[in-house]
Amino acid sequence: MSNQKLFNVAVVGATGAVGEQIIRLLEERNFPIKELKLLSSARSAGVKLAFKGQEITVQEATPESFQGVEIALFSAGGDVSKALAPHAVKAGTICIDNTSAYRMDPETPLVVPEVNVDKINEHKGIIANPNCSTIQMVAALKPLYDRFGISKIIVSTYQAVSGAGAKAINEMLRQSKEVLEGRESNPDILPVGSLPVKHQIAFNAIPQIDKFHENGFTNEEMKMILETKKIMGDESIDVTATCVRIPVVYGHSESVYVELKEDFDIEEVKTLIANAPGIVLVDNPAEQQYPLATDAAGKLETFVGRVRRDLSNPRALNMWIVSDNLLKGAAWNAVQIAEYIAIEQ
Amino acid sequence: MSNQKLFNVAVVGATGAVGEQIIRLLEERNFPIKELKLLSSARSAGVKLAFKGQEITVQEATPESFQGVEIALFSAGGDVSKALAPHAVKAGTICIDNTSAYRMDPETPLVVPEVNVDKINEHKGIIANPNCSTIQMVAALKPLYDRFGISKIIVSTYQAVSGAGAKAINEMLRQSKEVLEGRESNPDILPVGSLPVKHQIAFNAIPQIDKFHENGFTNEEMKMILETKKIMGDESIDVTATCVRIPVVYGHSESVYVELKEDFDIEEVKTLIANAPGIVLVDNPAEQQYPLATDAAGKLETFVGRVRRDLSNPRALNMWIVSDNLLKGAAWNAVQIAEYIAIEQ
Repeated sequence: MSNQKLFNVAVVGATGAVGEQIIRLLEERNFPIKELKLLSSARSAGVKLAFKGQEITVQEATPESFQGVEIALFSAGGDVSKALAPHAVKAGTICIDNTSAYRMDPETPLVVPEVNVDKINEHKGIIANPNCSTIQMVAALKPLYDRFGISKIIVSTYQAVSGAGAKAINEMLRQSKEVLEGRESNPDILPVGSLPVKHQIAFNAIPQIDKFHENGFTNEEMKMILETKKIMGDESIDVTATCVRIPVVYGHSESVYVELKEDFDIEEVKTLIANAPGIVLVDNPAEQQYPLATDAAGKLETFVGRVRRDLSNPRALNMWIVSDNLLKGAAWNAVQIAEYIAIEQ
Repeated sequence: MSNQKLFNVAVVGATGAVGEQIIRLLEERNFPIKELKLLSSARSAGVKLAFKGQEITVQEATPESFQGVEIALFSAGGDVSKALAPHAVKAGTICIDNTSAYRMDPETPLVVPEVNVDKINEHKGIIANPNCSTIQMVAALKPLYDRFGISKIIVSTYQAVSGAGAKAINEMLRQSKEVLEGRESNPDILPVGSLPVKHQIAFNAIPQIDKFHENGFTNEEMKMILETKKIMGDESIDVTATCVRIPVVYGHSESVYVELKEDFDIEEVKTLIANAPGIVLVDNPAEQQYPLATDAAGKLETFVGRVRRDLSNPRALNMWIVSDNLLKGAAWNAVQIAEYIAIEQ
């Protein structure tokens, strides 16, 4: 990486849960940075954050923030991306957007590097980072798609509260303490901060992540359904999702049923998964080894286990997919895309 | 119920989590009892338990305990049922067995009253109570089976720790406190008390309930697959299960995908479920209403919501089924069976 081009990079949403992880990864991965600009809402502007031993003052993100910025990583919510990314694109910035704002825009590539890295070059200024629960699933299923084809996916998720932000983590920990002490637990954030009804997440399972659509599916479920088809580049895959929030801090788990288009050998399936980039096979029932959210927390990889042939459909199999929703599900996937851009230029 | 026949009843496993609920329900339901005998292992013998204002001393369960007992409810583990139920049957006792010992025995009816109450009369001394996660699912699906037929069920569970007994509840609460206080959490019971490897359940999701079979499914998953076919009386139903323990105290939740044999109207489906015995439809996405484990805890009913037509298979639908695993999933289903026996005699 000597004599490598260095980039002016901006992180929009620098003080958020995902922004924090992006900054940490840019440092740990030694991303080729000339200057790092940290941007946030007016409320967080002025905060000082550490990066490679220096202090960087967070500035308010405005349409003028992107002059001279070559790569910007957005994770400040869909409204901020919608408002500012077009200005960044005009300024010549390549935007990696971690919100849902542009994911289903036909002009915007939706990229999981292990699945469709080639799409990065088709960007017109914006590359969208998929939804956390989608990323880990498609990364794990890609080797099976390439080898056998996939006709159907039915997924039920076990999603961590960190997916709803730092406030949701605090709420879950506070409620847990209250319940353990026999006190009243007053929910005020989950399941959806912007909606009126609140439910206790401590010692519970809430089958709602994001708002409901008219068809009875939640927005999170529709993201998994639509984004999977787009990332795989195959509208013929049937996808069904039920997304559930459970009292876990970091790490989404997924119970996935997959129908393949061809007959398969289950040992070959395990080998394909074990050899896939970014995937770790943890699958030894005799030793009670399978992926766990607590083990995946803080790791960049996606962990797959409980791989077993379905008993009623010989072309189907079941598996358990776990990854850190803030890392591969958000910050790491975005930084991976940035690394590909840096290498290409 | 005046002049009703009164029964000599025994509860085997009286000091356990399920036994405690059985005794409470026999009292609350005013079950027609002449004499109540409370039985347990030698270790718990001598304990005094309250029943209708009286104190009853728990006795050690032996092969001789059943003389004169007309109905016995067993929930002291499969080994106890295997050892003692045959003696009880010889003594003329009708045994309602809450363990897995006789569930798949072709001679033993496996009964969920809302589904196959007619099977009770075919007993040869023993009636088996199904697995908790199976009971609530078949109870909820029965009205759809009767109206449309069912070809396929794919279920992922979110199971409460109380299903693994009082020790597992204590472990989960203890671990939660330890994690909240930043201390080391030392698992020593879950996922399976009798197996060597232990995993943290606090703030985690463990995809193992009971031991693994050679086919990669756990025993809990095989129970759901095999018991569903037996209770429904239809071996042609394809069933796939992934059973997961989550940090909830009471109440199993289930994400269920069902393929019906005929076209259906989704509003008719909801009406059928709402009108089914023992089932409560809680399904109003606009008001963020759906079943929650914390709401189902302590209730006898099974709660169903998130009922929605599948987007890729027009004959399939998805739903969320929640019930108290110690009540409808165990004690209440057993007492229901006892009530049917009492009425028949």
